[in-house]
Amino acid sequence: MHSAMLYGVEDVRLEEVPCPEPGPGEVLVRVAVAPTCGTDLKVWLRGGHARMLVPPTPFGHEFAGEIAALGEGVSGWRSGERVVANNSAPCFDCFYCRRERFSLCENLLFNNGTFAEYLRIPAAIVRHNLLAVPPGLPLELAAMSEPLACVLHGVEEAGVRAGDTVVVMGDGAIGLMLVAVCAVRGAAVILAGGQSARLAVAEQLGAQVTLNYRQAGDPVGRLRALTEGGRGADIVIEATGKPAAWEAAIATARPGATVLLFGGCPRGTAVSVDTENLHYNELTLKGVFHNTPRHVREALALIACRRIAFELLVSDSLPLGKLDEALARMRDRTAIKVAMLPGS
Amino acid sequence: MHSAMLYGVEDVRLEEVPCPEPGPGEVLVRVAVAPTCGTDLKVWLRGGHARMLVPPTPFGHEFAGEIAALGEGVSGWRSGERVVANNSAPCFDCFYCRRERFSLCENLLFNNGTFAEYLRIPAAIVRHNLLAVPPGLPLELAAMSEPLACVLHGVEEAGVRAGDTVVVMGDGAIGLMLVAVCAVRGAAVILAGGQSARLAVAEQLGAQVTLNYRQAGDPVGRLRALTEGGRGADIVIEATGKPAAWEAAIATARPGATVLLFGGCPRGTAVSVDTENLHYNELTLKGVFHNTPRHVREALALIACRRIAFELLVSDSLPLGKLDEALARMRDRTAIKVAMLPGS
Amino acid sequence: MHSAMLYGVEDVRLEEVPCPEPGPGEVLVRVAVAPTCGTDLKVWLRGGHARMLVPPTPFGHEFAGEIAALGEGVSGWRSGERVVANNSAPCFDCFYCRRERFSLCENLLFNNGTFAEYLRIPAAIVRHNLLAVPPGLPLELAAMSEPLACVLHGVEEAGVRAGDTVVVMGDGAIGLMLVAVCAVRGAAVILAGGQSARLAVAEQLGAQVTLNYRQAGDPVGRLRALTEGGRGADIVIEATGKPAAWEAAIATARPGATVLLFGGCPRGTAVSVDTENLHYNELTLKGVFHNTPRHVREALALIACRRIAFELLVSDSLPLGKLDEALARMRDRTAIKVAMLPGS
Amino acid sequence: MHSAMLYGVEDVRLEEVPCPEPGPGEVLVRVAVAPTCGTDLKVWLRGGHARMLVPPTPFGHEFAGEIAALGEGVSGWRSGERVVANNSAPCFDCFYCRRERFSLCENLLFNNGTFAEYLRIPAAIVRHNLLAVPPGLPLELAAMSEPLACVLHGVEEAGVRAGDTVVVMGDGAIGLMLVAVCAVRGAAVILAGGQSARLAVAEQLGAQVTLNYRQAGDPVGRLRALTEGGRGADIVIEATGKPAAWEAAIATARPGATVLLFGGCPRGTAVSVDTENLHYNELTLKGVFHNTPRHVREALALIACRRIAFELLVSDSLPLGKLDEALARMRDRTAIKVAMLPGS
Ligand SMILES: NC(=O)c1ccc[n+]([C@@H]2O[C@H](COP(=O)([O-])OP(=O)(O)OC[C@H]3O[C@@H](n4cnc5c(N)ncnc54)[C@H](OP(=O)(O)O)[C@@H]3O)[C@@H](O)[C@H]2O)c1
Ligand SMILES: NC(=O)c1ccc[n+]([C@@H]2O[C@H](COP(=O)([O-])OP(=O)(O)OC[C@H]3O[C@@H](n4cnc5c(N)ncnc54)[C@H](OP(=O)(O)O)[C@@H]3O)[C@@H](O)[C@H]2O)c1
Ligand SMILES: NC(=O)c1ccc[n+]([C@@H]2O[C@H](COP(=O)([O-])OP(=O)(O)OC[C@H]3O[C@@H](n4cnc5c(N)ncnc54)[C@H](OP(=O)(O)O)[C@@H]3O)[C@@H](O)[C@H]2O)c1
Ligand SMILES: NC(=O)c1ccc[n+]([C@@H]2O[C@H](COP(=O)([O-])OP(=O)(O)OC[C@H]3O[C@@H](n4cnc5c(N)ncnc54)[C@H](OP(=O)(O)O)[C@@H]3O)[C@@H](O)[C@H]2O)c1
Ligand SMILES: [Zn+2]
Ligand SMILES: [Zn+2]
Ligand SMILES: [Zn+2]
Ligand SMILES: [Zn+2]
Repeated sequence: MHSAMLYGVEDVRLEEVPCPEPGPGEVLVRVAVAPTCGTDLKVWLRGGHARMLVPPTPFGHEFAGEIAALGEGVSGWRSGERVVANNSAPCFDCFYCRRERFSLCENLLFNNGTFAEYLRIPAAIVRHNLLAVPPGLPLELAAMSEPLACVLHGVEEAGVRAGDTVVVMGDGAIGLMLVAVCAVRGAAVILAGGQSARLAVAEQLGAQVTLNYRQAGDPVGRLRALTEGGRGADIVIEATGKPAAWEAAIATARPGATVLLFGGCPRGTAVSVDTENLHYNELTLKGVFHNTPRHVREALALIACRRIAFELLVSDSLPLGKLDEALARMRDRTAIKVAMLPGS
Repeated sequence: MHSAMLYGVEDVRLEEVPCPEPGPGEVLVRVAVAPTCGTDLKVWLRGGHARMLVPPTPFGHEFAGEIAALGEGVSGWRSGERVVANNSAPCFDCFYCRRERFSLCENLLFNNGTFAEYLRIPAAIVRHNLLAVPPGLPLELAAMSEPLACVLHGVEEAGVRAGDTVVVMGDGAIGLMLVAVCAVRGAAVILAGGQSARLAVAEQLGAQVTLNYRQAGDPVGRLRALTEGGRGADIVIEATGKPAAWEAAIATARPGATVLLFGGCPRGTAVSVDTENLHYNELTLKGVFHNTPRHVREALALIACRRIAFELLVSDSLPLGKLDEALARMRDRTAIKVAMLPGS
Repeated sequence: MHSAMLYGVEDVRLEEVPCPEPGPGEVLVRVAVAPTCGTDLKVWLRGGHARMLVPPTPFGHEFAGEIAALGEGVSGWRSGERVVANNSAPCFDCFYCRRERFSLCENLLFNNGTFAEYLRIPAAIVRHNLLAVPPGLPLELAAMSEPLACVLHGVEEAGVRAGDTVVVMGDGAIGLMLVAVCAVRGAAVILAGGQSARLAVAEQLGAQVTLNYRQAGDPVGRLRALTEGGRGADIVIEATGKPAAWEAAIATARPGATVLLFGGCPRGTAVSVDTENLHYNELTLKGVFHNTPRHVREALALIACRRIAFELLVSDSLPLGKLDEALARMRDRTAIKVAMLPGS
Repeated sequence: MHSAMLYGVEDVRLEEVPCPEPGPGEVLVRVAVAPTCGTDLKVWLRGGHARMLVPPTPFGHEFAGEIAALGEGVSGWRSGERVVANNSAPCFDCFYCRRERFSLCENLLFNNGTFAEYLRIPAAIVRHNLLAVPPGLPLELAAMSEPLACVLHGVEEAGVRAGDTVVVMGDGAIGLMLVAVCAVRGAAVILAGGQSARLAVAEQLGAQVTLNYRQAGDPVGRLRALTEGGRGADIVIEATGKPAAWEAAIATARPGATVLLFGGCPRGTAVSVDTENLHYNELTLKGVFHNTPRHVREALALIACRRIAFELLVSDSLPLGKLDEALARMRDRTAIKVAMLPGS
């Protein structure tokens, strides 16, 4: 079968490799669609990821498809069934799992390799994070369950309620999902991003106001000016992965706000936090990473209910052979997400 | 001015009364629109309400309008401003308010009389529960803040999440609001109601399945059959005010479910609860009544964000003089809510 | 080895059986102490338990001891280590586990047979619910982790805070633990029970007032009279397993209260609930059953910190051969818990 | 009457001033005991406090006493009644109060002047934060309700549970209260402080381990070494008000931890936070300031239940005339709290 392997900085190669065989408890899936995401782009630009991907390595982690074969001892599933799987599953046994902090599981094994014709799903994921795609739901949409699960995890931590003024920073696929999820709960969402086409999508997804952070100075001042009495936002969610944006996010928050630091910054970076603002204004700063099985289920359900136009996030489709082009479009910000189609 | 007075069973009369003067801290509002609701109907049919309305009494409790005059010492508001007010405000001082249980406030004074040209808003409501209607939002929609605040209060207690299977019982305006609010959060909502036109509205508001409880026997069995593995619903919300429906609601719940008992039944009635089901299945039964200032704000915000077609609930508009006809339509289930227009 | 087998109503026999061998993933424990509990008594009096125990069956479910042998593949433990294990573990895979409702796990296998010299711990319990006893903590105390975990689970659901007036009904070991746990959090605890010696223990454990439900009429009236303004209790926890006590518990609650229905009543019984009280007074009725791994850990930690005199609950110790006598003392209410000592 | 006035740096003078008269809604209290606290010390050393105290100003904010006179319109209280009052009350009306964030109230008026024979209680505090001291509870203990309310507010935000490893930094009265409150909930508390006598008190209050931060290097390393597997603490609470301690607190936290930043640092200071640690380890950093009416009530109840030896915190008593000496003892760390006795 064809499979994309990452070798280094901007070096991904489509190779012919043997089709994997599902071992005991495993499932083999034919990948129908594998969307690209901002993290793929980051990894491609950097040539790897300290925690998740050491090259050479199979590449890609979002997908939906059909079950092609079942490993020994797998029950409850049948060949041909339409499925989506998360890229990891917790162990339920480690220090963190025992404290019900599943996204911090010490034994989280990331399953990569969705930019391929077939993908093997490890037993732990089969058991805990493989889901049937509801009838009628396009696989292209179901494939977004993993990133949306991260988003729902974050939004739950932030405690967004109707009427909250939420500032989102970052207009990538993640920022746009955050906009959509907060808006549908009745929050007044303000998005700061870098590109007008994406800001337009944000408005279609429910953003009340959008702002191009590159144009005109003082984005923090402009964002604060958009909030009631200039107090700052009730909730700020950073989704850029830039330390400067983290500091801007904190500066945009009102007293009592929660600031969600959703974007992973480059290793070794730090931000400066004013003690008076944090203490007397009772700020809550929360790092949030990855997802949990409950959020994966909630994500698929939210996609399936079709109240949010997630299709707006998949700006292009390309055959698997054009992965380089897809990543280049991501880099050049001309695509939000590209649906890679291994079958075409 | 003209004002509707309730005298007894199905006896409401439009009378000419002096226009009220706003006292210190009070505000006088010109009522632009005053929707009818199921509680109005109940009170009209029974000729009063033990807790809230002893005839003869001004009638009606939902409205939106414009500020006509300000009492002494009122600041922060100006004449002509478009507003909506809740029908009560907590005292922040009693046993319950001190425990932040504002809907149980011992000093909750209900402000009735919205079926009139002008309405006086007591000082406590001015201070805590009078809200400016955002520009561009039709007053007809803003007027639904009070009942929607009750609904949001209930839904918060129920803890609805994406992917939950929620059964709502009752297809009045309240049941339909519950459907809409749960659906927009990604819940799979099943509605049981009594009339096909309302069930059709529920589907427009996002219900996945609807069921006419009058047709065919065993609604509980049919509802359970619609849930995953026949286990029952994750959350059941009763909005009929009938003891039989309360028992049906409990019987429709899966282990671990929350059953929200939203509809007030006739005084003196009781339901029977099986101890094994409640204890070993860890059911949570929750009575929920009225709203809180926070929910009133959230309700107006949710209406204002226009993600839910609340306009579907206002099936008719009539001049104030046709209040009898409006209530008759409510009784005959040919209207969901009627917008009474004192100005026309 | 010697092991107690339950054969039927008040028919438990000490038999010589082969010592079990630990299979893969399992652990064999030498039982040092196995306390009796109210559920054991109930099962002994009824000759079995529909859900958990069909005779003939090994008997007893609380214990602490030392690891005697490790099955294949067990790591992280060593022979001689002092341990306590819960009597069950969730599967982390079923409908309920996926929703993080571990006490409702569909695959909960109850491990009975602690009234024996040795006990085999199934692999799932080894993995999730086997805990090391901290140095210096008497095994007799550690052995109470399982019931205390149920109690902590319940108290968490009830949301007890400092200053709450909590009424506990039932002065068995469970009721006394509830008293101690609520009192240490600063609640004002009132206990209603049936026997003066137990009520005296409750006072040592922090109950502010105790009441003998058998003496003088109208316990509900007397309990309410003890609460602020006669409003009723902020939280009521029923721990008797009697339908009449359930109804008394509901009647003792103030508006806005949570009533925890902790005691399992006989199958087929029901209680009657007044709709007005439940709805307008916003009561929350919660069934609560069993425990979760997190609560088992919290229970052992709470025992280990020695802030609560749990030793007061173990009124007697007897050699395993005197199990009949121990159960008779439980039945006659002359013992709270009896520590069975298989080694003596 | 005699009243202490703060004039500047280490300049507090006992003056003869007219006894205040209670206005409408106000209450006059005879101060029986007014404990010193770390904030008083800070203010005395700095000669004021930007937010709360601009000299010349009456000084002191903790006390308990007896009602001496009632202003017009005050009901529900009688002369001679033993009371304690918080030093502030929220307005229930501002932006923050409407969001139920009472400690951030924009209209919080701080009532100072407890180092005096009599104290006037403003109407808002009478209405919301004046409490009767339960019979039998020494006023000296009741007087600690205000700081303990801050502590309970913080501990609630931190979500401390039995079995959590909690590191507290700071062995002032606040740090010691934090130790006591966490320990009584079954947490394993580790305290880092600066003075052996205070560390000994911490052990009496339930600290499992204490550490002198001045002795030997690398307190963070030593604290981490005390936690399970060296992972760091489940919860870290900083109560020193030093930026270096804030950074040490963050460095002591395990992944998934909550770090409570309880101590207010000097204006204009900042801390540096590593982005990788905050994001991938899902840390929660929370500033927490002041208290709420609910916590004031909970604090008095917790003191009254006498499960915690709060008397250990009041190391000395002195007549009001010796306030200078009391503050000097605080400065020299030879007193934890000094009970000032205006009547002696
Ligand atoms: N927590 C989790 O579980 C999780 C899961 C998935 C992703 N993430 C993280 O979330 C972040 C966003 O992911 P993504 O896929 O959406 O990434 P992306 O496609 O790189 O999008 C980031 C966007 O932020 C914009 N941006 C940069 N600086 C900004 C600023 N100061 N203000 C406003 N916008 C700014 C960028 O615009 P320009 O390019 O025009 O500057 C870009 O469009 C990444 O850091 C990713 O690692 C976290
Ligand atoms: N908790 C609160 O704060 C709050 C606030 C507002 C209202 N409420 C209560 O909420 C309830 C609903 O209010 P509403 O204004 O929507 O009342 P409504 O207009 O009377 O609607 C109730 C609906 O329930 C239907 N129904 C009756 N029995 C049913 C059953 N067994 N299964 C399914 N549907 C059934 C009725 O249909 P048929 O007429 O065809 O039988 C009717 O359409 C009332 O009890 C009201 O008092 C509570
Ligand atoms: N939810 C869970 O996870 C869980 C876990 C363990 C146990 N339980 C249940 O909790 C309950 C208590 O357990 P236990 O071991 O403590 O049982 P227990 O030893 O039988 O104690 C029950 C006590 O309640 C007293 N009582 C009976 N009626 C009463 C009334 N109306 N008012 C006040 N007290 C009354 C009894 O006194 P007299 O005998 O003098 O009448 C008896 O001392 C049982 O139903 C048990 O099944 C639940
Ligand atoms: N959030 C709120 O609502 C609230 C309420 C009241 C107080 N506070 C704040 O809480 C903090 C503590 O109050 P307090 O009255 O207890 O103050 P305090 O009496 O000044 O005590 C602070 C203690 O921390 C010790 N300390 C200093 N640096 C340390 C370090 N690196 N590691 C460990 N211990 C260290 C000090 O010891 P040495 O003197 O020996 O160095 C001192 O004993 C203050 O900042 C106060 O402003 C906050
Ligand atoms: Zn794990
Ligand atoms: Zn009130
Ligand atoms: Zn399970
Ligand atoms: Zn305020």
